[in-house]
Amino acid sequence: CCVLNEDGKIYFLHGSRGKRSILGSKCTSASLCRVVMEGLLTRCRALPALATCNHQLSGYIPRRFPHCAPGRGKRLVLSCMFQPQNLREDQVLPVEGRSGDLTCKSQRLMLQVGLIHPASSGCYHLLPYTVRAMEKLVRVIDQEMQAIGGQKVNMPSLSPAELWRASNRWDLMGRELLRLRDRHGKEYCLGPTHEEAITALVASQKTLSYKQLPFLLYQVTRKFRDEPRPRFGLLRGREFYMKDMYTFDSSPEAARQTYSLVCDAYSSLFDRLGLRCVKVQADVGSIGGTMSHEFQLPVEIGEDRFAVCTSCSFSANVETLGSSQMNCPACQGPLTETRGIEVGHTFYLGTKYSSIFNAQFINIHGKPSLAEMGCYGLGVTRILAAAIEVLSTEDCVRWPSLLAPYQVCLIPPKKGSKEEAAAELTGQLYDHISEAVPQLRGEILLDDRTHLTIGNRLKDANKFGYPFVIIAGKRALEDPAHFEVWCQNTSEVVFLTKEAVIELLSHVQVV
Amino acid sequence: CCVLNEDGKIYFLHGSRGKRSILGSKCTSASLCRVVMEGLLTRCRALPALATCNHQLSGYIPRRFPHCAPGRGKRLVLSCMFQPQNLREDQVLPVEGRSGDLTCKSQRLMLQVGLIHPASSGCYHLLPYTVRAMEKLVRVIDQEMQAIGGQKVNMPSLSPAELWRASNRWDLMGRELLRLRDRHGKEYCLGPTHEEAITALVASQKTLSYKQLPFLLYQVTRKFRDEPRPRFGLLRGREFYMKDMYTFDSSPEAARQTYSLVCDAYSSLFDRLGLRCVKVQADVGSIGGTMSHEFQLPVEIGEDRFAVCTSCSFSANVETLGSSQMNCPACQGPLTETRGIEVGHTFYLGTKYSSIFNAQFINIHGKPSLAEMGCYGLGVTRILAAAIEVLSTEDCVRWPSLLAPYQVCLIPPKKGSKEEAAAELTGQLYDHISEAVPQLRGEILLDDRTHLTIGNRLKDANKFGYPFVIIAGKRALEDPAHFEVWCQNTSEVVFLTKEAVIELLSHVQVV
Repeated sequence: CCVLNEDGKIYFLHGSRGKRSILGSKCTSASLCRVVMEGLLTRCRALPALATCNHQLSGYIPRRFPHCAPGRGKRLVLSCMFQPQNLREDQVLPVEGRSGDLTCKSQRLMLQVGLIHPASSGCYHLLPYTVRAMEKLVRVIDQEMQAIGGQKVNMPSLSPAELWRASNRWDLMGRELLRLRDRHGKEYCLGPTHEEAITALVASQKTLSYKQLPFLLYQVTRKFRDEPRPRFGLLRGREFYMKDMYTFDSSPEAARQTYSLVCDAYSSLFDRLGLRCVKVQADVGSIGGTMSHEFQLPVEIGEDRFAVCTSCSFSANVETLGSSQMNCPACQGPLTETRGIEVGHTFYLGTKYSSIFNAQFINIHGKPSLAEMGCYGLGVTRILAAAIEVLSTEDCVRWPSLLAPYQVCLIPPKKGSKEEAAAELTGQLYDHISEAVPQLRGEILLDDRTHLTIGNRLKDANKFGYPFVIIAGKRALEDPAHFEVWCQNTSEVVFLTKEAVIELLSHVQVV
Repeated sequence: CCVLNEDGKIYFLHGSRGKRSILGSKCTSASLCRVVMEGLLTRCRALPALATCNHQLSGYIPRRFPHCAPGRGKRLVLSCMFQPQNLREDQVLPVEGRSGDLTCKSQRLMLQVGLIHPASSGCYHLLPYTVRAMEKLVRVIDQEMQAIGGQKVNMPSLSPAELWRASNRWDLMGRELLRLRDRHGKEYCLGPTHEEAITALVASQKTLSYKQLPFLLYQVTRKFRDEPRPRFGLLRGREFYMKDMYTFDSSPEAARQTYSLVCDAYSSLFDRLGLRCVKVQADVGSIGGTMSHEFQLPVEIGEDRFAVCTSCSFSANVETLGSSQMNCPACQGPLTETRGIEVGHTFYLGTKYSSIFNAQFINIHGKPSLAEMGCYGLGVTRILAAAIEVLSTEDCVRWPSLLAPYQVCLIPPKKGSKEEAAAELTGQLYDHISEAVPQLRGEILLDDRTHLTIGNRLKDANKFGYPFVIIAGKRALEDPAHFEVWCQNTSEVVFLTKEAVIELLSHVQVV
C-alpha cells in the first residue's frame, strides 16, 4: 500500500493500528500520482461501510446539502460539544441503569461514548451526535422514498379511539397501546402505527380517480409502544422514530408492483448504508394483509430467527415455517437458521383497511372501487443502533460512513510539545477544507483539548468513529507540512500534504 | 416597468393582476439588458416576503441543499400530488367541522387548498405541501440556532411524573398536561416543554467546567397541551411542533449575553422570513424566571394584546402593565395597543431549575456552582399558520418565499388548443431549469392537468402561492419562444425567453 503526494513523494505504509512504516521516494509522474491516489480512494469506496449509491436501483440525484455550519469564521471545537465522553475528560462515565440491563454492544457503546442518555424505562435522550446521524439517515430515507414518488405527510400522535375501534385493534393491540383521556374524557392512544389514520384521511377525498394512483404517502415521526420489557437501548424502546409509508393502488396487480418498488427502495437504502440486509418472508401479525417481508440485519443478539436456504434464494422468518420444517419449501435444500434485527417490514394489505374506512377511487369504468393498500415500515432509531451493533468493535463505535455525525476530526499537537508550532497549521487546514470542499462544511471537528496528548485524543477519536482523523504531529513541521491521516473505514494511515488531504476529502460522500 | 430579454427585445408591462400590456422594441445593448433584469430582481428582493438573510446578524453560510428530487428523468406533476385542492378538480371541498369553528383566514385557507386536514379536535394531519414548508422552516431555524452555537438534541415526549413533581409543575400545570400511565402504572405526561428534562440531563454530567459553557441545547419536536378549546387551526392546537432551546451559563452576566444572542437570532430568523415581528416585554407565567420577551406578529385576530410606545422603543404585553397604565413607563409617551400572535417566547430563568435538579459546573475557583439558565421557544407550526394569516389575501395563500413548498409551477397549454404545440417546450423548460439551476431541483411542479384551461390552472396556482408561475401560452410559439412569468410576490408579469427565465430563477433563494 503506497500513497504519492502531489509534491512527488511516494509513501509506502501498512495500516495495522498503532504500527506504521513510512518510506519516502521521489517521483515526477503526475499520472502515477493519480493512479496511487485512486487506489486509496477505490479501497475506501469498496468497503461496504463506504458503499456508494446504486444509481440503477434508486434513481435519486446525488447531491450534498449540509444546511448548517458554525457562524462565519468560527470553527467547531470539541471542548464545547455537549458530549459526555468529552465532558468526562478520561473518567469513566457511570453508566445509568443496572449493568445487567446492558444486554448488547450498541447500547453499552452508545451510553459509554455519550450518544444517548436514559430518560425513563425504554425512553432515551438522543444527544447531539446521534441527532446528526439520525437527520442524515432521514435525508437518505427521504431521497429513496421521494425517488419512487413518495409524498411526505405528518399525522398526529394522539390517535382517537374510534379509529382503532373501527378496525377492532383498540382491543386486539391490548396493552401494547399507550392510552389516555383528554380533559373532556375523550379516549386516545399514542399511535404505534397509522393504517387507520391514513386510510380515513384518503377516504375523506371524495373524487379520487384511478389516474391519480398510486399514492405513496409516508411520514417519519415518533411512535409509541408500551413494551413490557424495554431492552437493548434504541433497539427496543417505548418511544422511537419510524418511517411508515402507506400506498394506495387501483388494482392488485398495480399494488404488487408498488410493493416491489418499495422493497427495491429499501434494498437500495441499505446498500447505500453498507448494511447487508436479508429480505425474508414474514408473518403479517396484528397489521394484517396477505403478504409480508422483513428486512433482517443478521447479528447474533437479534431477537428474530430466520431461515435461509443455502441452495436457492429462499429465506423466511421461522414463525412462518412449521416447527419441524428443516428443508426449503422451494427447492427442498437444507435451511440454515440465523438471528437478525428486523430493521424494515413490508405488508401487502389488500382492502383490509380501505374496506373498513371506505377508501375508494373512481375506476376506469367510472365506478367506485376500493383502494388496494400496502404499508411499509423502517425503524429509524433502530437502524442507527443496529448499524452500530453490526459495524462496531467492542470498544469503538463505527458508523455507516454516510451517517457518521462528523466526517473529519482534526487533532492539533499538544500544548507545550515540540510540535506545538504546528497548531496554527491545523486551524488553517480546517479553514482550507471548509473552503475547498464545500460539502464538508459543518462536518469537521477540531479537537482543541490540547492539554491532552495526541495519543489520548486519537484514542477518543477512534472510539467515536470519525471516518477521517487528521493529526498534525512531528511531520507537520516539514516543508511542505505532512499530516497523518487515519482512514477509519479502511484502517489505513497515510501521510499527506494539505493538497493531498483536500484531494482525498473531496471524494467523501455526505448526505 | 420593463424587461429586456437576451434576444434584445424590451417588454414594457404593468403587473396588476389580470391586466397587462406588452410592447416589444429592439435593443442591442447587453448592459442595458443587464440593468433592466437587475431592476426586476431588485424589486423581487426588496419585498419583505422575499427578504434575504441579514449576514451581519445571523452569520450563517447561505447555501442551498434540496436533498430530494424525483427519480432520474422524472418530473413532478401536479395530477399525482396528494393534494385535495387538486383532487377535487374544481369542486369545493366540504370543509370539515362546523363553519362557525373556522375563526381565522389561515385556518380556512389551509383547509380549503388542502394544506391540513382535521384528525381530531386540535390535531391536524399536515399534508405534503405543509410538510415541505415546515421542513424548510426547520432548516432555517437550524441554521440560525447552529450559527450561534446551538446543539440539537431530542428528548422523549413521555415525561416521567417525578420530574414534574420535583418542580411542583405536576400540580401547577393542572389540566393543561395530558397525562397517562404505562402498563406498570407509572405516571407520565406528554411534554409541553422540557425545562425539567433538560436540566436533569445536564445535571447528570458530573464534571462540567465553566470553560465548556455556555451550552445552547435545543430540539424541534412535537409538543402536547390539552387546550380547553382548540381553535384557529395550527395557531392553537393540542399537538404542535415547537423549537425549544435551553441555555446553561456560568454567570448571570454570561447568561444575559446568551439571552441577547438568542433574541438576535430570532430577529434574524423573522427577517429572513420577511415577517415583521415585535419583541415585547412579557410575563414569565408558569415557566418562571425573572425576565421574559415575546415575539409578536401584529395581526387583528391575534389573541395577545400588547402596547407599543409611539415615542420610544418600549413595547410590552398588556398583561405586564397595570390595567390603568396608558403611558409608556420609559418615556411617559402615549401607548398604542395592538393585537398579535405570539410566535416566539424567551425566558431568563436564573437558577430556578438548576437549583431543583442540582445542575452544577466547576467554576473558575474550582468550586461547584449552579448553572444560570434561559429557555427559548419558537412555535414551528404556529409560525407557518401565522405567516399565512399575515401574508395571504382572502382567497390566495401567500408564503414567506423561502418557505414556499414549491418555488415554480409550469403551466403547459390546454390539450386541443391552438398552443398545444408548445406543450413539449414546457417539459423541456422543466428539464432545462433543473439542469441549469441546481438549487431548484425538486422545487418545480408541472401542472399537467391539460384538460383544464390555462386560466383555470393559473387561478389554482394563484391560490397555492407558488412564487413563480410560468405559462406556455400563445407567445411560446414565437421564435424564440417567450414564456409568461408571474412573479407572485411582486405582482409582476413578464414575457421572457428560456434564457431570461433561467437568469431570473438563478437568483431565487431556497433553503
